[in-house]
Amino acid sequence: MQLAKVVGTVVSNRKDPNIGGFKLLLLRQTNPETMEDGSYVVAVDAVGAGVDEYVLIAAGSSARQTEMTKNRPCDAVIMAIVDQWTIDGRQVYEKFSPNHGYDVEI
Amino acid sequence: MQLAKVVGTVVSNRKDPNIGGFKLLLLRQTNPETMEDGSYVVAVDAVGAGVDEYVLIAAGSSARQTEMTKNRPCDAVIMAIVDQWTIDGRQVYEKFSPNHGYDVEI
Amino acid sequence: MQLAKVVGTVVSNRKDPNIGGFKLLLLRQTNPETMEDGSYVVAVDAVGAGVDEYVLIAAGSSARQTEMTKNRPCDAVIMAIVDQWTIDGRQVYEKFSPNHGYDVEI
Amino acid sequence: MQLAKVVGTVVSNRKDPNIGGFKLLLLRQTNPETMEDGSYVVAVDAVGAGVDEYVLIAAGSSARQTEMTKNRPCDAVIMAIVDQWTIDGRQVYEKFSPNHGYDVEI
Amino acid sequence: MQLAKVVGTVVSNRKDPNIGGFKLLLLRQTNPETMEDGSYVVAVDAVGAGVDEYVLIAAGSSARQTEMTKNRPCDAVIMAIVDQWTIDGRQVYEKFSPNHGYDVEI
Repeated sequence: MQLAKVVGTVVSNRKDPNIGGFKLLLLRQTNPETMEDGSYVVAVDAVGAGVDEYVLIAAGSSARQTEMTKNRPCDAVIMAIVDQWTIDGRQVYEKFSPNHGYDVEI
Repeated sequence: MQLAKVVGTVVSNRKDPNIGGFKLLLLRQTNPETMEDGSYVVAVDAVGAGVDEYVLIAAGSSARQTEMTKNRPCDAVIMAIVDQWTIDGRQVYEKFSPNHGYDVEI
Repeated sequence: MQLAKVVGTVVSNRKDPNIGGFKLLLLRQTNPETMEDGSYVVAVDAVGAGVDEYVLIAAGSSARQTEMTKNRPCDAVIMAIVDQWTIDGRQVYEKFSPNHGYDVEI
Repeated sequence: MQLAKVVGTVVSNRKDPNIGGFKLLLLRQTNPETMEDGSYVVAVDAVGAGVDEYVLIAAGSSARQTEMTKNRPCDAVIMAIVDQWTIDGRQVYEKFSPNHGYDVEI
Repeated sequence: MQLAKVVGTVVSNRKDPNIGGFKLLLLRQTNPETMEDGSYVVAVDAVGAGVDEYVLIAAGSSARQTEMTKNRPCDAVIMAIVDQWTIDGRQVYEKFSPNHGYDVEI
């Protein structure tokens, strides 16, 4: 999976019937160390992600293994919203959400 | 999925029987921020796209999940024509079509 | 699919039984605008292509969707010989074949 | 497969139900000759790997061929912990583990 | 498929049960024209290849289409040992093996 940041939305009215009704988000891959933005990708959102959130993207046929995307012409899906990551024991990113609470799960 | 711009057509008379009869379009990947053209790719058109339109391409096995491309030796399909995209809340591209009307769907 | 030019052949006597008997061609990806050669790839030939011809390659699992390559350990197949392509309305390449005639199909 | 080094962990509380409960590790691809770190990737851990261990990652649909990842939206899995590798007959890396013993298997 | 040269071996004692018992080889992609070494990849050996031999690698789901690798978490397989290749009619590489004889098959 690739770490990415949601940066925008993509709107389409003329789509293959199999992909209709999905929320399409625009993302940039994230360098986990420097947090710099990388390549762009458009993904179907399976978890209710919003702009500025860090997420994980599954690509290829694995993008079709969520309930929402099964048998769809979709090659990238957001399958997790990221709360925290560490490199060499150092916490690089932590998302604090007062509304939903926060507890570490590894 | 990748954002791309239709730039041309590809004609072939000698094809594998499983791919016969498809419209093959030549596309360039689009940088969503600068709108600059990137790499070329040839894709089957599943939505009736035309030259100069911005579209979404699904690649790999996901390219075979439209009615048109099922079980075909096709690794890239145009599965959506793009009407609009935004980055950081700013609208980067909007396609206005007086013939078909236009309404935002996210 | 990727546009590529057939540049050579690859010979192997010791192969997995599932891939035996196939013609393996050496190709270089083609820049559709400048016609410059790019990366090399080896593909199974499903359409009877020859050296110097421009072809389309399907990669990944899509390379197994021809009659010839079904269930084979093959990740690239030539599934079309290209007769012509255009960019921005300009014809970049046209193959003329006096033996087989030539008519445009889009 | 790609040789990679485990460098950290990724925590997510809001995931697609199909990927829930997995340990997600952050890895960097390893140059087998220079041992330099390369690109980052996030993978599901199917073998109990830990930070600083060298592992093999299977990507794409092959990442779903372990018991743990079957039918999951997972496009990268750690399917082996590496004990040793050689280049041109020279042993580049050897992991010595006094707890588990060590014997070469090729 | 990609042309590659076997340069070493990879040893792992702790593997996913589905991948146990396979010979894992370390390879470098080969530039077919200059014979220069490129990127590294680790592949399962389905044909009995040895160090310094030139081989073909099938990647992705196609790597699971040999008897040996069916349903395994394996994304790269050596499915052919290469005896010869040509570019523009010129023979770039020929492997001569006095033990096994040699005859050209296209």
